[in-house]
Amino acid sequence: MASLGKYPARAHAAKVASALVAAGGSREDAVIYLQGDCHSCRHDTDTEQHFRQESNFYYLSGVELAGFHLLYHLGRERLVLLPTRMPADEVVWHGQPPSLEDYAGRYDADEMRYADELPALLDHWRPKTLYTLPRQKLTALGTSWPHKLAVDTEHLADALAAARLIKDAHEVALMQLANKISSGAHVKLMQQARMGSNERELDALFTYEVTRQGCNQLAYHSIVGGGKHSAVLHYGLNNATLPQKPHELVLVDAGGEYNCYAADITRTWPIGGKFSGEARILYEIVLSMQKAVLEQIKPGVNWEDMHRLAMRICVDGLVAARILKGSIDELHQHHMGAIFFPHGLGHSIGLDVHDVGGYPKGMPRIDEPGLRYLRMRRKLEEGMVVTVEPGCYFVDTLLDDALEDPVKAAYINADVLACFRPVGGVRIEDCVVITANGYENLTSVPKEISEIEALMASASH
Amino acid sequence: MASLGKYPARAHAAKVASALVAAGGSREDAVIYLQGDCHSCRHDTDTEQHFRQESNFYYLSGVELAGFHLLYHLGRERLVLLPTRMPADEVVWHGQPPSLEDYAGRYDADEMRYADELPALLDHWRPKTLYTLPRQKLTALGTSWPHKLAVDTEHLADALAAARLIKDAHEVALMQLANKISSGAHVKLMQQARMGSNERELDALFTYEVTRQGCNQLAYHSIVGGGKHSAVLHYGLNNATLPQKPHELVLVDAGGEYNCYAADITRTWPIGGKFSGEARILYEIVLSMQKAVLEQIKPGVNWEDMHRLAMRICVDGLVAARILKGSIDELHQHHMGAIFFPHGLGHSIGLDVHDVGGYPKGMPRIDEPGLRYLRMRRKLEEGMVVTVEPGCYFVDTLLDDALEDPVKAAYINADVLACFRPVGGVRIEDCVVITANGYENLTSVPKEISEIEALMASASH
Repeated sequence: MASLGKYPARAHAAKVASALVAAGGSREDAVIYLQGDCHSCRHDTDTEQHFRQESNFYYLSGVELAGFHLLYHLGRERLVLLPTRMPADEVVWHGQPPSLEDYAGRYDADEMRYADELPALLDHWRPKTLYTLPRQKLTALGTSWPHKLAVDTEHLADALAAARLIKDAHEVALMQLANKISSGAHVKLMQQARMGSNERELDALFTYEVTRQGCNQLAYHSIVGGGKHSAVLHYGLNNATLPQKPHELVLVDAGGEYNCYAADITRTWPIGGKFSGEARILYEIVLSMQKAVLEQIKPGVNWEDMHRLAMRICVDGLVAARILKGSIDELHQHHMGAIFFPHGLGHSIGLDVHDVGGYPKGMPRIDEPGLRYLRMRRKLEEGMVVTVEPGCYFVDTLLDDALEDPVKAAYINADVLACFRPVGGVRIEDCVVITANGYENLTSVPKEISEIEALMASASH
Repeated sequence: MASLGKYPARAHAAKVASALVAAGGSREDAVIYLQGDCHSCRHDTDTEQHFRQESNFYYLSGVELAGFHLLYHLGRERLVLLPTRMPADEVVWHGQPPSLEDYAGRYDADEMRYADELPALLDHWRPKTLYTLPRQKLTALGTSWPHKLAVDTEHLADALAAARLIKDAHEVALMQLANKISSGAHVKLMQQARMGSNERELDALFTYEVTRQGCNQLAYHSIVGGGKHSAVLHYGLNNATLPQKPHELVLVDAGGEYNCYAADITRTWPIGGKFSGEARILYEIVLSMQKAVLEQIKPGVNWEDMHRLAMRICVDGLVAARILKGSIDELHQHHMGAIFFPHGLGHSIGLDVHDVGGYPKGMPRIDEPGLRYLRMRRKLEEGMVVTVEPGCYFVDTLLDDALEDPVKAAYINADVLACFRPVGGVRIEDCVVITANGYENLTSVPKEISEIEALMASASH
């Protein structure tokens, strides 16, 4: 990490300022103000919640600790970070806090001040506009500065989204680390999974592997679904016995967070280490969906087109597997593919696993099965980091509805479908950064059938 | 777990009802209403927070899931649990939810209804008093029932605290499990700690060990402090390199939560596996503090007397070690012990690590060094579960203040103290349940010097 250097907070502030100005905002006499998150307790107890900095605050400060404020002067291009002074009687409990000099050595700011100096600083700068986020508390700014100040809560969120959507080299490096550590953890799970053990053990092992290697937390609640649970898209109970039959699948959707940057990775593999039967056919469909998309993605490509491409490959595969029948055009016209691939192809990822900026201002959702859940609708640009996560599932509730609908049922071979149902589902998900001519895959977990089988064979099942 | 049977929610509701009635409340035409916690997201994102049921709701329901309500009729002695109906379009994402019959088989209720039936149920029962907690939302109750209903937010919290303070056999069994699993994790840390590795690895290992064995989460943020960090009472960064010198100490204060019941355990041991020098002397002082208390505790004993007993042993030990000098009476009169043992002896523990009921209504804190932080001031009763966690530390800020105070400095051998400062601190903490004639120790991590040394020698350092 030392080689990465300081998190580039000042460059981020300048980028957000440019976005504000591009949207018609003022640069002279304008400041951005945010208060970082504070420690909080569980319900009405004194049990402290795990602390995680608010993402926008992290983007503009690089501060992972509680109790900070930030003030950025757009005209002066000056970023000030302001920790809260620790009361003397708390030093016994928490130890001597870092000094302002210590913080200055750690964070990329023009100046470090204590938060109780905020009113004086504002009085000195006398800005005319203060950009902040809705619901931001302004109490720390005091009320004693006498000049007029317009508080603008309308424009900062959009400017932050525009800036955060395109990652810089430092951010990509952090996401490479998050992916490297998380990829290693996925490999461990493949190696250590045992028939008849519990989803809980894999869940715990993933968390262990990523936290011991430097992730502060998971980027999201892990999904560890064995057998039919692989078809529950947001399964999160992770407490059932893993399959006892070697061909049955386990779906693991899990990623760690490194310095607040997320990884989001899914792999699906047979508990016994060898793909066979319907599970193998299903896996090959999903892998070909992902490969088709990866071959196409580069700057300028419309994300919704990639979703439709994946959907075409999915339907082709379902027809080849004789689950669906009829003309391809009619199958798409009746959205038959969305019964099996009901979620979006992927999303922007960064400081949040579902990162900001997926939809440009005013861009509506597409009201079609599957596509309406797409979390991103825009042209890809260099520097975006997105997940590519096609899936194909046998979800009972969707299948039962389709079989009861005479129009849809006519396109389904019910007997073939019945053979596939117990398989559950497959999802394969990588994080990729869009480059000038294509993409770089940040995720390095094996996904070819031969690779996974070799990896799992090397562990003793 | 199967042998434990259902969590005794109805017995708990009856116990709380009795406490309400004992405090002058009405039984006839009175109900208790609570809404359990719901899923929440991190800041303004869709990243779901880890869910943990609110403790009072768990006590009266045994429901660990989000989106439930409960209604208990005091006169009818009837407990109704009411899950929120899952919208049809969410079934795709979360899977088919359990049915009311499934829930009835899992939870100890007289009746299961959906939450949207709350208004009708209230209209049927027509209670005159509704006991609930302050800030409890009542929107799910509707507004259409026409009768008069007095909402009492004053008395339920005290009744819950009185009931929760005294644990029943089921609760003790859960705390035994939380302690058993957490004790095993502490042992693993002693076995796997290595000089020069990182506090973070032990932190991650503890979480792994308790979660893979059935704890849903930690009962509190772990403290893993090596070297001088052992003297930071609420240290939680857990990211420094562990000591390189074999005699230096590591303090681990960590516990898992089993079915919402907490364990809270601290052990302190030398990174190299062998106690020596000042660290050994310090450890022996703290162990003798704990043993002295454990010899005394039983129903009827005042907790603050136990704190004072531990303090006496502490001061005796510091005098024997020649850190303090002068008459014992004067040392106590000047609160010299609280410089080294600045926190309280222990606290009630249960659904929360610092559980409710520590101070009877109206009981003030004792305004003396150390004692003012005591989290419990009452006579011990059979069925209480408390931590016994004496400690002795060399906290720079407290020592420096004392050395600058001529009155206090006169009682300190500064040269001896200087030798002890680098040791940091020692805390030894067990969870014990008060029995009819004494106590049962729920914690089973070795704490005798010979036991710890043997355990750590058996691992390869």
